[in-house]
Amino acid sequence: MVSLAGGLPAAELYPIAEIQAAAQRALAKHGTAALEYGPVEGLPALRALIAQRISTETGGLFSSANVMLTTGAMQGLDLIGKVLLDEGDTIVAQSPTYLGALDAWRPRMPVYKKLDWTAPDTDALRTCKFAYAVPNYSNPTGVLVGQVCRSALLNDVLESGTWLVEDDPYRSLQFEGDPGPTILERYVAEHPGPYNGPIIYLGTVSKTLVPGLRVGWIVAESNIIQALALAKMSTDLSSSMFTQAVAFELLEAGFDKVHAQTIAPVYRERRDALCHEAALRLSPWFEWEIPVGGMFVWMRAKGNAINTDELYQFALDENVAFVPSSVFDFSGEDCFGMRLNFTRNSPALLREGIERLERAIRKYVSR
Amino acid sequence: MVSLAGGLPAAELYPIAEIQAAAQRALAKHGTAALEYGPVEGLPALRALIAQRISTETGGLFSSANVMLTTGAMQGLDLIGKVLLDEGDTIVAQSPTYLGALDAWRPRMPVYKKLDWTAPDTDALRTCKFAYAVPNYSNPTGVLVGQVCRSALLNDVLESGTWLVEDDPYRSLQFEGDPGPTILERYVAEHPGPYNGPIIYLGTVSKTLVPGLRVGWIVAESNIIQALALAKMSTDLSSSMFTQAVAFELLEAGFDKVHAQTIAPVYRERRDALCHEAALRLSPWFEWEIPVGGMFVWMRAKGNAINTDELYQFALDENVAFVPSSVFDFSGEDCFGMRLNFTRNSPALLREGIERLERAIRKYVSR
Repeated sequence: MVSLAGGLPAAELYPIAEIQAAAQRALAKHGTAALEYGPVEGLPALRALIAQRISTETGGLFSSANVMLTTGAMQGLDLIGKVLLDEGDTIVAQSPTYLGALDAWRPRMPVYKKLDWTAPDTDALRTCKFAYAVPNYSNPTGVLVGQVCRSALLNDVLESGTWLVEDDPYRSLQFEGDPGPTILERYVAEHPGPYNGPIIYLGTVSKTLVPGLRVGWIVAESNIIQALALAKMSTDLSSSMFTQAVAFELLEAGFDKVHAQTIAPVYRERRDALCHEAALRLSPWFEWEIPVGGMFVWMRAKGNAINTDELYQFALDENVAFVPSSVFDFSGEDCFGMRLNFTRNSPALLREGIERLERAIRKYVSR
Repeated sequence: MVSLAGGLPAAELYPIAEIQAAAQRALAKHGTAALEYGPVEGLPALRALIAQRISTETGGLFSSANVMLTTGAMQGLDLIGKVLLDEGDTIVAQSPTYLGALDAWRPRMPVYKKLDWTAPDTDALRTCKFAYAVPNYSNPTGVLVGQVCRSALLNDVLESGTWLVEDDPYRSLQFEGDPGPTILERYVAEHPGPYNGPIIYLGTVSKTLVPGLRVGWIVAESNIIQALALAKMSTDLSSSMFTQAVAFELLEAGFDKVHAQTIAPVYRERRDALCHEAALRLSPWFEWEIPVGGMFVWMRAKGNAINTDELYQFALDENVAFVPSSVFDFSGEDCFGMRLNFTRNSPALLREGIERLERAIRKYVSR
């Protein structure tokens, strides 16, 4: 089976030796503090380091009170739902949307309204609990949202008085240059002083280092952090201080930034391999944009002629997997697209996967 | 401040060197598998090891399908609430009850009925979603539930067709011999073959090794495990494979059992130091049983003459802390008891804490 389905990094690039060394330093330096139940908000040294980084990157003033560590950014999404959402509340979100967010918030049965970047719906923003966006190389579409659109959304969020959840796991996976300021950064540029804004920003080491440490973070105004910490307390008491201490050692040394420079060219090469092979084999039936970062290519069936929920079984029969668009659509109605991951497999395997996908499509259309 | 409030192990006994070595082995042996998003149910090797251990200990037949790993046993309680509880459902529980369980289940606003070990309320069991018990050295009371009572509860659970959540973090902290079979073990003895019973058993390395790995587990029939895994997926995708691999290395080598032999005598000495000092200083106002294991002494005000919610502020003024009984009572009405922890501090500090508590009581009664 060639899986183009998951959202997984290239395992062969995991920095095992650096993590081994960091684990040794973590215990030597932090001692028993790395082995306790933590403060629920996370290892103080790592909270402070992230506050300092965000301050430097954005030019703002963030303290530890603005930072909470989580079991991956996914737990951040879950806790945000627990704290902000009542049953049936409205969320304004990009469509298609990250599946994990849909899963996390499903228990509250939210109503979704589509976020149109070119003309945000200010009425929807006024009545929603929060907006949710992945401006950098979104999942599943790989789209990089431009600065004009970011600015428009920020203005409308500020005007409407709602929250904006800015989920940013892919930022450092840049293939064609820097994507420019995050929405948080744009906000801070216009609102100097201690951070007190409506943006709830999610970060993680899952895509830049490894997912298995399960270290993510939420940056937000301190009242929100306190409410999220209360919710986390009744969920798991705290995340692992040990993995947070390991992450601290790696981030303090700046290793994540160095490692991103290793990863990005490999991922770019894989993106090219997949897109080139797809151009040769899949373009009679599908169209797509070449993503400038991240982990995914988002393909749309030309003329909605192929139902990807149905194609999926044909693909499995050819030993290749993708994720059909319906799972990313809050209405569940979009069944003419598919998400292909290009980071997990070698270029040769990616080409093999596309070849199998072509066979599956040919069988599907002549069924 | 001398804190007798927390439920924390003795940090100076944390086996730092062994965990350093285990972290090295974990990465050398499990490689990138220890750095991935895991299977949501947990690291396969650790699931299999726990299934094998439980099979050996109970004489039953447990497979990996009966085991899910969690971020501490606390996450197990949260997930059980998510899967089993609807709003307003009834839980039959020991009273007083572990605070973390009350916190985890509070969002569902359950109705609690008290579990009377000597005469379980079979009507309540028939109508509740599950019973919750900590038979070994309970939190907060330190009580060891005898085998006759365990047997009675098991029979009533089986008759009523409800679930029993058996929470067992303290089992290896034995000061006066083995407590005998768990309720799970009693069930298995009477029901040989692949496990398919109503007991949902929670274990953890938090008390025997360190809390900071955040490795706990749920043992249950496989359908429940599947439902819990779905709930976990939308909570945090998976717990850390790295800390699970570290725990695997330690458990596979049997180090947790060796280490329990190191911890228990130290804790017994501390229990004796606290109880001896308390007998000299606090017996005019409080009474208690000497616990035969675990981490806590549960003190009751004689004649309900002291309100421990009120005493608490006097104690803080004397720089000593405890947990008042009201937080463990689902009705919030019991304000004549307190939980004292004896595992975290040295005997000298425990004696100092009791001396301060005596001063606080004298000021309280003469206020």
